[in-house]
Amino acid sequence: MTDAYVVGVDMIKFGRFPEKSVPQIGAESALLALDDCGLSIQDMEALYCGNLMQASAMVGQRILQEIGQTGIPVVNVSNACATGATAFREAWASVKAGLYDIVLAVGVEQMGRGLLGGTGGKGIPKEGLFGSGTMPAVFAEAGMEHARKHGTTFEQFAKVSVKNHHHSTMNPKAMYQIETPLETVMNAEMISYPNTKLMCSVNVDGSAAAVIATEKKARELGLLGRAVKVCASVLTSDRWQERDLVMPDVNTCTQEAAAKAYAMAGLGPEDIDLVELHDCFATAEILHYENLGLCGAGEAGRMIDDGEVALGGRIPVNVSGGLLSKGHPLGATGIANIYEVSTHLRGEAGERQVQGARIGMTHVIGLGSACGIHILEKAA
Amino acid sequence: MTDAYVVGVDMIKFGRFPEKSVPQIGAESALLALDDCGLSIQDMEALYCGNLMQASAMVGQRILQEIGQTGIPVVNVSNACATGATAFREAWASVKAGLYDIVLAVGVEQMGRGLLGGTGGKGIPKEGLFGSGTMPAVFAEAGMEHARKHGTTFEQFAKVSVKNHHHSTMNPKAMYQIETPLETVMNAEMISYPNTKLMCSVNVDGSAAAVIATEKKARELGLLGRAVKVCASVLTSDRWQERDLVMPDVNTCTQEAAAKAYAMAGLGPEDIDLVELHDCFATAEILHYENLGLCGAGEAGRMIDDGEVALGGRIPVNVSGGLLSKGHPLGATGIANIYEVSTHLRGEAGERQVQGARIGMTHVIGLGSACGIHILEKAA
Repeated sequence: MTDAYVVGVDMIKFGRFPEKSVPQIGAESALLALDDCGLSIQDMEALYCGNLMQASAMVGQRILQEIGQTGIPVVNVSNACATGATAFREAWASVKAGLYDIVLAVGVEQMGRGLLGGTGGKGIPKEGLFGSGTMPAVFAEAGMEHARKHGTTFEQFAKVSVKNHHHSTMNPKAMYQIETPLETVMNAEMISYPNTKLMCSVNVDGSAAAVIATEKKARELGLLGRAVKVCASVLTSDRWQERDLVMPDVNTCTQEAAAKAYAMAGLGPEDIDLVELHDCFATAEILHYENLGLCGAGEAGRMIDDGEVALGGRIPVNVSGGLLSKGHPLGATGIANIYEVSTHLRGEAGERQVQGARIGMTHVIGLGSACGIHILEKAA
Repeated sequence: MTDAYVVGVDMIKFGRFPEKSVPQIGAESALLALDDCGLSIQDMEALYCGNLMQASAMVGQRILQEIGQTGIPVVNVSNACATGATAFREAWASVKAGLYDIVLAVGVEQMGRGLLGGTGGKGIPKEGLFGSGTMPAVFAEAGMEHARKHGTTFEQFAKVSVKNHHHSTMNPKAMYQIETPLETVMNAEMISYPNTKLMCSVNVDGSAAAVIATEKKARELGLLGRAVKVCASVLTSDRWQERDLVMPDVNTCTQEAAAKAYAMAGLGPEDIDLVELHDCFATAEILHYENLGLCGAGEAGRMIDDGEVALGGRIPVNVSGGLLSKGHPLGATGIANIYEVSTHLRGEAGERQVQGARIGMTHVIGLGSACGIHILEKAA
C-alpha cells in the first residue's frame, strides 16, 4: 500500500469571528493549505470535512461553494473533540485505499454559536449539551486522582499553563500571545480544583486544513521536499467501563491508541521529537505525558518541574501554545495539531522551532468517546 | 487491492418509535445485520455510523454502548439524504484500504424529532432547516421541466406511486403495505403540482446495517456463499451552477455518479437487474430512470406506462416500496437500499423476488449536495 504524505497544511489565526459563517471560516484555511503547496481546489479529488456543532449542515459542500464547486465527493464527519483528527484520518484512508491520489481535509468550528451555548469569558462552557461544569469536573477529578496516587501538586498542574502560554508568545496564529506567570495562573478564578480559569482550554473559532497525497503524486508535483509522511493514524473509542459513556476514561483510551500508533509506525516514545497533545485542561496534559509513554507512571510532575516538556527540553509538548492558549475550536483542533507538528518537521516554525525535529506526534481525545493519534515524519 | 463484500445486512421494519432513542433504533439493525452473518460486535474492527439529525451527538459510540463497547474506532458521518450511503462507503473504503478486514456500517434516523421539525401527516416536512415547502417545490419544478420537454403527464408521475405502493405490499419491513389505486394517488391532497401527498416520501424512523469484509475474511468465515460483492462505490457533489446550493440540480449530480459507477464496475445499464433509486418524490423517480441510463432521454413516461420498471418488468425499480411507501429515514435510507438489493441477489426476497437477479444498483441523492451510487453483484 502506498505511503501518504501531507504536502500542504495551514491554519488561520484562531480568534472570534461572529460576523463570519462556518463555511467561510473553513474556506480560509482550505485556501491557505492549497496555497501552501501551490495547488487549487481543482487539483483536489475529494474533500473530507470535520465540524462538530453544525455537523448536519453540509459544511464541506458549503466550503466548496466558497472556494470552487468541482463536483468532487464530500464526506462530512464529526467525532466530538476528535472531529478534525477523524476528518484527516478518513482523508488519509482514502489515499491509502487508492481511491484518490490527492485530497483535502478541513476542520472548522465556530464556538460562539451552537451546541455548547454561550461561553463564560475565557473558554469555559457554562451550559449546553453536557450540562453545566461537567467537563471541568471530570478533568479536575482525573487530576486529583493523579495527585492522590503520585503527589502531583497544584503548582505542577499550574506550570503546564505557564509553559503553554509562554510557547504561544512565539506563535502568531495562537489566540493569546501573553506571558502568564505562575502566580497569575494560580490566582485566577478557580473553576474546578485544581484547574483555574487559566488552566482551561480557550473557546475560539478557527479552522485548519491539510492536503494529503500519495508518494507518487507528491513526487510528480515536486512536493516531496517539504512533505511530511503519515507514519501512523489510529482512532480508538472507550472500552466498557463503569462510567457514564459521555465521560471517557481519559487514560485508557489514549494509552491504547498510543500503543497502536507506536506499533504502526515501528517507533517508540524515545523517537518522538515533539508532541501536540490534548491539553483541554492543565490536568489532562499531565496525565497524557504518562498515557503517551513520554515518561513512566508518576513521573509527570517531575517532567514539568524539570522543563523536559518545554521548548528546549527533552521532548517539547504543545509548543504551539496548546488548547490552553492557542485555543480549541473543536472540529479544527486535530488538523491544527497536524499543522503545528508539520511546521516543525519542515523547519519552518521560526522562533519556536524544535531544533532538529524529525518525528512528531499529535493527540486528541473527544468525549463520548474518540481518541485520535497521528505520528508524522519528515520526508527523506 | 482486495475486493470488499457485504457479508451481513439487514434493516428494521420502518415505523414511528418516539419512545426509543436514536442509538437504540440504530442498535436494533446493527444486531440484525450481525445476526444475519452469525457474528457479534466483538468480531467487528471498526464502526461507521451515518445519522443526519443528531450528527453532533456521537451516535456511533452510543450504539456501541447498546450492543458492546469494544474500543474500536468509530466514525460518525453525515451527508443529507446520502448519509447512509456515505457511511457505507467509508466503511467499504476502510476495508479496501487494508485498514480492517471486517467492519460494521449503520445508518439510523428518527424523523419525529430534530432538524426538520414536525411533519405534516404522511411525510411532508412543514418547516425546518430548508424552509416550508422548499423540497416539494424543487422536485415539482424538476418534474414539470420534464413534462414540458417530453410531454410527461400527471398520470404517469402518479403511476410511480401506484407501482411503489404495490411493491411495498410484498415487503414486510415497509412502513406501509397498502395497495393504492391510481385514482387515490391522483385525488390525494395536492402538495406541489404534480406531486400529491401520496407522491411524497414517507417520514419514518428506521435503521439499517451492513457488515463489510475483505474477500479473504469472508472466505475464512465461510460467508462467501451469501455474500454480495461491491463492484462500484461512487460519491459526487454538485458542480457550480446558477442555483442555490441547497437545491441540487437533481439531474447532473446523478448522471455524473452513474457514469463513474458504470465505469468502475465495468458494466452498463443493460447489465443491471434491479435498482433502488431515490424516489423522494414521484417526479424524482421519473427523472432518475433517464439519469441512471435505464432508458433514453424522454422515454421515462413510456417506461412507467409499459410496466418495464415494475416487478416482473425489464428492470424493476424500487421493489422494496421505495421512499414513497417503505419510507425515508434519511440516514438509514442508503443502507436500507443496500439491504434490499442484497436480498434479491441472495434470492431471499420472497414474494417480491426479482427472478434471476445477479447485479443491482442503489442510488441516493442529498440536498446540498451529495449523490451516492453503489453497484452490487452476487458473489460467484
